[in-house]
Amino acid sequence: MNGCDLLAKLEMSSPIFLAGMAGGVTTPELVSQVSESGGLGQIGAGYMTPESLSNDIDRIRTLTSKPVGVNLFIPEFPKINQSEVNQMNEILKPIAEKLNYDPGYKVIIENCFDEMIDIIIEKGIELVSFTFGKPEESLVRKLQNHRIVVVGTATNELEAKALYDIGVDAVVLQGSEAGGHRGSFNQTLPEKLYTTESLFDVVSQQLDIPLIVAGGITTPELAKVFLNKGATAVQLGTAFLTTKESGIPEVHKESILNAKSDDISLTKAFSGRYANGIHNTFIHYLDQFEDEICSYPIQNILTQPMRGQSKKMQNREFMNLWCGTNPEGARKETVSELMSRYK
Amino acid sequence: MNGCDLLAKLEMSSPIFLAGMAGGVTTPELVSQVSESGGLGQIGAGYMTPESLSNDIDRIRTLTSKPVGVNLFIPEFPKINQSEVNQMNEILKPIAEKLNYDPGYKVIIENCFDEMIDIIIEKGIELVSFTFGKPEESLVRKLQNHRIVVVGTATNELEAKALYDIGVDAVVLQGSEAGGHRGSFNQTLPEKLYTTESLFDVVSQQLDIPLIVAGGITTPELAKVFLNKGATAVQLGTAFLTTKESGIPEVHKESILNAKSDDISLTKAFSGRYANGIHNTFIHYLDQFEDEICSYPIQNILTQPMRGQSKKMQNREFMNLWCGTNPEGARKETVSELMSRYK
Repeated sequence: MNGCDLLAKLEMSSPIFLAGMAGGVTTPELVSQVSESGGLGQIGAGYMTPESLSNDIDRIRTLTSKPVGVNLFIPEFPKINQSEVNQMNEILKPIAEKLNYDPGYKVIIENCFDEMIDIIIEKGIELVSFTFGKPEESLVRKLQNHRIVVVGTATNELEAKALYDIGVDAVVLQGSEAGGHRGSFNQTLPEKLYTTESLFDVVSQQLDIPLIVAGGITTPELAKVFLNKGATAVQLGTAFLTTKESGIPEVHKESILNAKSDDISLTKAFSGRYANGIHNTFIHYLDQFEDEICSYPIQNILTQPMRGQSKKMQNREFMNLWCGTNPEGARKETVSELMSRYK
Repeated sequence: MNGCDLLAKLEMSSPIFLAGMAGGVTTPELVSQVSESGGLGQIGAGYMTPESLSNDIDRIRTLTSKPVGVNLFIPEFPKINQSEVNQMNEILKPIAEKLNYDPGYKVIIENCFDEMIDIIIEKGIELVSFTFGKPEESLVRKLQNHRIVVVGTATNELEAKALYDIGVDAVVLQGSEAGGHRGSFNQTLPEKLYTTESLFDVVSQQLDIPLIVAGGITTPELAKVFLNKGATAVQLGTAFLTTKESGIPEVHKESILNAKSDDISLTKAFSGRYANGIHNTFIHYLDQFEDEICSYPIQNILTQPMRGQSKKMQNREFMNLWCGTNPEGARKETVSELMSRYK
């Protein structure tokens, strides 16, 4: 499938992807409005439960009949699968009753990856993108057999090649300007970070596959640069964060609208994985404990109550204010206004 | 270090290792008696907490002044490290107090591997053996720098070579006759299982490193076969299970003493990893759900309450009755009697 076929299959009149940003960003309104306006809306399901994903898809289907996508994280603990756990618990239940003990079956770091895939297939989602690694090749085939477009995320040419080799339909190239998490396969930071442009230039010469370019694209002019170079589409994150439909706290929106490039730091303080966000007290506080930061997803679990409380309090200092390195292009607008500007 | 040096360093007058069997088998009495009788006792610390390991070492040191070993499992979830979690919780505490929220920091599948290593070093343990994979090369160096003998476990020649390459001091070769868990690096069953003898024959020709042979050795005659072939030592599991000092339930001891080779099955019903045990109702029950068995350590967590209750009830039908394929050699005796027979 070439780039044109891909856009046609996804019924896109505008080559704009909504980044599948996790953590309550991609409201049904945001996702559906992007697809409805000719782009491709994606649910950022990285931290969702199967139930919330299912509900969001149902709600989005009432808002648009256009194709939509779902972004999933490749699990760090693939051995933990809640549905398998539940099944085994059922198998063991008669023994617990017979021997009269409290089963107390518990496995806590839940990994609902397979359940999410089942829901995506059942609900007829049109595209699945993956972040933080590559899916099993058999999963790529399974999704494609259900006519689902499969997209991987790469931050360097080796990751792009690995995704190409397992037959994904398109690759998102995420440069160092991108807000939020680097979608890299591993959690370490390479010596050399590819900028969005340098990454596109390298990979587009090596691989014959539709490329979706992401990272710091917050103006129609920048989008055009990549489309003119041959990118199939661009993917916007920060630019959508400040729209009316985005689900981030108001204080986060305001912070982006007031931010300058210099305010952005690359930090693993919140989750254990490197991400670009607006500098604040928490990032500063953890600077002195850099070696003590746990790896993802452990650090993310440990800071979860703090992030929850700071959202409630609209306290920007202990919140993960994800933002790309070109915040100056972001505007306070509706999705439809944004999509018109990028026409 | 050659085989003779190894035995000398460990002050062994008899080339007999106690297998580091986990799950309450290796009581301080069993471990200390094996070392005291000229062999090398090992604490099976695979499922222990740092606290219980620490207590057991202290108790063993009061019972013998001879060297002892500790067996550890290579963790399946290396990213989870409870001491790192605790440290980060401390770092986040002032924020929780400031923002007034319940930290609720929890990570449940605990992996205390690093804490166990610290205790082993602090307490001056003389040998560490690893099962279910290979340790980081840096860990091997660290232990050796503390004058600790490092031993890996292999079930085929590739695993043996991988252990050799990271510079362990000796390799335990575990053949298919071994009771309990196969100590293989991964959880799948190969097409061809090496018997103890075939494994020794292959590896001893390829690698110049002290080899400790394990699997089905329940008679002095069989032990002699391997020692005459050039094995540095043999490692006994089942033979020690039925000694007075072993910590397994009486019903388990009786089951071994009454078992025949035909009663032993290779099953992953209890833990998700393949292990040899005496056939019983639970193994039979799970035969019909083979595809639903979760991977290790999940299945092990899920069957834990059942195993606990069946121990309390001395109910052999729902207990993991680990046993090698040559149970006929096992006797009801003391460690000292066993060690005399193997002189």
